[in-house]
Amino acid sequence: MRSHYCGQVTEQELGNSVTVAGWVHKRRDLGGLIFVDMRDRTGLLQVVFDPDFADMFAEANKLRQEFCVQITGEVRARPDGQVNARMTTGKVELLAKEITILNRAAPLPIDYNQQVSEEQRLRYRYLDLRRPDMNEKIQFRARVASAVRRFMDSQGFLDIETPMLTRATPEGARDYLVPSRTHKGKFFALPQSPQLFKQLLMMSGFDRYYQIVKCFRDEDLRADRQPEFTQIDIETTFMSAAQVRELTESMVRSLFLEMLEVDLGDFPVMAYSEAMRRFGSDKPDLRNPLELVDVADLVKDIDFKVFSGPANDPKGRVAVIKVPGGASLSRKQIDEYTAFVGIYGAKGLAWMKVNDRAAGVDGLQSPVLKFFPDAVVTELLERVDAHDGDILLFGADKATVVSEALGALRLKLGQDFDLVSSEWKPLWVVDFPMFEETDEGFFALHHPFTAPIGVSADELRANPGAALSNAYDMVLNGVEVGGGSVRIHDNAMQQVVFGILGIDEAEAQEKFGFLLEALKYGAPPHAGLAFGLDRLVMLMVGASSIRDVIAFPKTTTAQCPLTDAPGVANPAALDELGIQIKP
Amino acid sequence: MRSHYCGQVTEQELGNSVTVAGWVHKRRDLGGLIFVDMRDRTGLLQVVFDPDFADMFAEANKLRQEFCVQITGEVRARPDGQVNARMTTGKVELLAKEITILNRAAPLPIDYNQQVSEEQRLRYRYLDLRRPDMNEKIQFRARVASAVRRFMDSQGFLDIETPMLTRATPEGARDYLVPSRTHKGKFFALPQSPQLFKQLLMMSGFDRYYQIVKCFRDEDLRADRQPEFTQIDIETTFMSAAQVRELTESMVRSLFLEMLEVDLGDFPVMAYSEAMRRFGSDKPDLRNPLELVDVADLVKDIDFKVFSGPANDPKGRVAVIKVPGGASLSRKQIDEYTAFVGIYGAKGLAWMKVNDRAAGVDGLQSPVLKFFPDAVVTELLERVDAHDGDILLFGADKATVVSEALGALRLKLGQDFDLVSSEWKPLWVVDFPMFEETDEGFFALHHPFTAPIGVSADELRANPGAALSNAYDMVLNGVEVGGGSVRIHDNAMQQVVFGILGIDEAEAQEKFGFLLEALKYGAPPHAGLAFGLDRLVMLMVGASSIRDVIAFPKTTTAQCPLTDAPGVANPAALDELGIQIKP
Repeated sequence: MRSHYCGQVTEQELGNSVTVAGWVHKRRDLGGLIFVDMRDRTGLLQVVFDPDFADMFAEANKLRQEFCVQITGEVRARPDGQVNARMTTGKVELLAKEITILNRAAPLPIDYNQQVSEEQRLRYRYLDLRRPDMNEKIQFRARVASAVRRFMDSQGFLDIETPMLTRATPEGARDYLVPSRTHKGKFFALPQSPQLFKQLLMMSGFDRYYQIVKCFRDEDLRADRQPEFTQIDIETTFMSAAQVRELTESMVRSLFLEMLEVDLGDFPVMAYSEAMRRFGSDKPDLRNPLELVDVADLVKDIDFKVFSGPANDPKGRVAVIKVPGGASLSRKQIDEYTAFVGIYGAKGLAWMKVNDRAAGVDGLQSPVLKFFPDAVVTELLERVDAHDGDILLFGADKATVVSEALGALRLKLGQDFDLVSSEWKPLWVVDFPMFEETDEGFFALHHPFTAPIGVSADELRANPGAALSNAYDMVLNGVEVGGGSVRIHDNAMQQVVFGILGIDEAEAQEKFGFLLEALKYGAPPHAGLAFGLDRLVMLMVGASSIRDVIAFPKTTTAQCPLTDAPGVANPAALDELGIQIKP
Repeated sequence: MRSHYCGQVTEQELGNSVTVAGWVHKRRDLGGLIFVDMRDRTGLLQVVFDPDFADMFAEANKLRQEFCVQITGEVRARPDGQVNARMTTGKVELLAKEITILNRAAPLPIDYNQQVSEEQRLRYRYLDLRRPDMNEKIQFRARVASAVRRFMDSQGFLDIETPMLTRATPEGARDYLVPSRTHKGKFFALPQSPQLFKQLLMMSGFDRYYQIVKCFRDEDLRADRQPEFTQIDIETTFMSAAQVRELTESMVRSLFLEMLEVDLGDFPVMAYSEAMRRFGSDKPDLRNPLELVDVADLVKDIDFKVFSGPANDPKGRVAVIKVPGGASLSRKQIDEYTAFVGIYGAKGLAWMKVNDRAAGVDGLQSPVLKFFPDAVVTELLERVDAHDGDILLFGADKATVVSEALGALRLKLGQDFDLVSSEWKPLWVVDFPMFEETDEGFFALHHPFTAPIGVSADELRANPGAALSNAYDMVLNGVEVGGGSVRIHDNAMQQVVFGILGIDEAEAQEKFGFLLEALKYGAPPHAGLAFGLDRLVMLMVGASSIRDVIAFPKTTTAQCPLTDAPGVANPAALDELGIQIKP
């Protein structure tokens, strides 16, 4: 029904007869002629209807926005002054000779050129997706998926499907449950990830596995969460952490080169401890030049408990962020930042303006200056390399609170002071603590199948708090785009980890018996990683929500305004499943 | 951890030092040496341990089946007489220099060389999948998926994901339901196919869509059914039925060439009516030379109601299958075939043996011969081209019964008489009736979104029974591997079809309101097709069940012996979902 896509009709076709099929994007009547921008997925093409062809012109006169039409015509150069350099097809136009209206369109319920509510956009998603901007984002995503597959195929990875109807997974989030009809009263769970299955595939000898796969979490949603999301899931056998990183880094690098013509270069590798120390975050945004500087050693003897307390507490932290130009902040602005860090549990935000460093203490302005001996002030200014016009912002509290509060403040300051560079800044974060210790016991920082670094099962049991895990996160511009680890392939080690996590033998057997059993039969060393495809694509296209890179997303209340899902179930169906709705 | 895969070590590596990692497939102790067949996903490699290297030999002596090991050694030629021509690595062996036991294996619960129950195979699936035969099948499947994707990519198709949590789909089978937590008392359904979403994608202007996607049906299982199965799902805009067939046929043809070095040639296209007439089936196995021959016109006046009744009934059918060599069938064998057609509702199976055609009626043997005038017999033998030694088997009943019974009998006879050729025999079946008329009304033979051929909405409403649908099934060796259609893109036509199917306006609005709405805004002509990937791969690898080409399938009671899914749900989780198990 077409000889060319709209976007393919360029000067090379001058004088040729071409047929296009698509939609009326815009119609203008001008000087007795009708101009139509025809649209398909490749772009726009200007079509001109001349009243000299009377029948056709009468038909063209019926055209309204979003009519679906087929047009045959002759390609000619646009008159001088009408050339549009921003369009691929901007030098030509199609002089229509024949037109067939394939389908009419009622007036649109949403206006492409106006801000429309998210609800309306999702309800009329098929129209929303016709907007060139949205259409291109979804096309881009498809090309990303294709490029990923080509790369993985070239590296000998096998695309193997894992079950969607499976057992509750131990990732910690809430599972979506699926009642079983043949086993009444029992439930499948939709996978939060194919974690255990991909490990089993390595034990089956498939060596290199990948899958672009839907995963499910029934959590309360945020802007970048969806009930169902897509992972690029990878697992390898006989490869070290560094090898997995090298391979997946090279995948992402080639993806950016191919899709965006951006060379990400080699990714720096940073220990978790360094990331927390310098950036207060395990996913630091390196586009932001601000850093946290530790000063506990300077203030541990001063006569100001707010600082000296945490400085002398092994679990405390005192750190400072220096903001160039920040001395201009008003009292009110500082109060706003104080309220901001309060969200993260900080009880205050001490500050020090550097108005005239050469003037020594006299050139400073700070409510806490009186507590600082001159020598300490000198050393402090030295350490943060303060210049006139800077402000120093202090955090002093438990280390977790300081890191989190200043880490968040750093990002906010980066935005407010326009310090964030426009480069791409990837890195690897490694050497995570194996466990997080809380009052309720140990929790796995990654998941319970992550191997520790360089300790035996006995050593791990003896001192779990000190162990580092052989995990790695890929961070891009402050967003965790992927994470993975070397897995435990030793039955004894796996049992010790379950034990540390407070999973007793009966529970381990009940939940993970099949894994423990599988580890008895020559399970190979294996390691892997999973990328969040939605987030990766969102970053690449510069979208502000993953909803813009998913064809049919749900709302933040996990609902679909288009199909009106979830819906009421047939009572007979529930009967067959042996369940009922609670009164 | 390796320099080579096991299967890569050939004569080209003679004298080289290589490192392999994998599993002990078999160990033999012979002449003071230890021989180990090392296995990875690429195949087997013979490794020799020599007692001259004492430490290593002691370590090798610990090896048992399925130990996971890393071995470095020197590649040398196998001694004369030990060459194994059937193995890629059969001319060489690895003289071990270093060995590291990566993981030990307990004695296996399943024996690779013995027949093991399906239940045990699935319970220890990770071991079952290590068997070279099974491992290769899953690897083959991955390569098929990859080849399909490469083909679709090359044709400009976009891989776009559709939702898994969606609204009940109208395909007719039972849905898997997923209770919603945020909308208590309501349910998502897992998709039986992405049918409506792919149509919406065409309305969104994506032009060419494909997806290799999980679909779900909660049906009682048979050998070739699974609760979750995988479709190669395809949809196109502005393409005719013939173009969709050409494109998908060329995909399958290139797949067979690439994977099996088989040229399927051009697929014949056969009308549904011809398929039913000649083969009694809408998915005829063309490897089987037997055909049904209609003889109603010959017997409509004979004095035998069993034949003349159906012959004079517009809904009746009288047909015959001629089986070369069938005259040798015993009375008992004929009785067995009679019982067999009884399964399909046939009330009997009249037969006629052609012992000596030259002898005329005297050369025949049949309980019904007495009802046939000589002239009719002559014409009958002429029409079926009977030869000495043939048997004719008759079906006379309602057309549906005769077609189904003789269609099944044809397949059975083909097997029993070893008539089925070993070629690949694809074809397209087209021109299906739009509706099936039953006492309870009209049913869609495909699905309610299938367009009719060459009638307007009004003409369709006037005579639904006569309409043909613009649908097409791809059949390979008697298996329907794919099916599709041109879809309705016209709101009025869609409403008429819903009306004929007895879906009233309120129900149509409730169930398909969003589709009817979408059809108002310039929906383009579109058409598509879906392949059953599991079945296609099963055929290609010659497996007898789709379970053998699925890494982690369910049993016939929709259960997973490996993970023990479905499992008991946490009562608190059910509480949150607002559902309870029926007492």
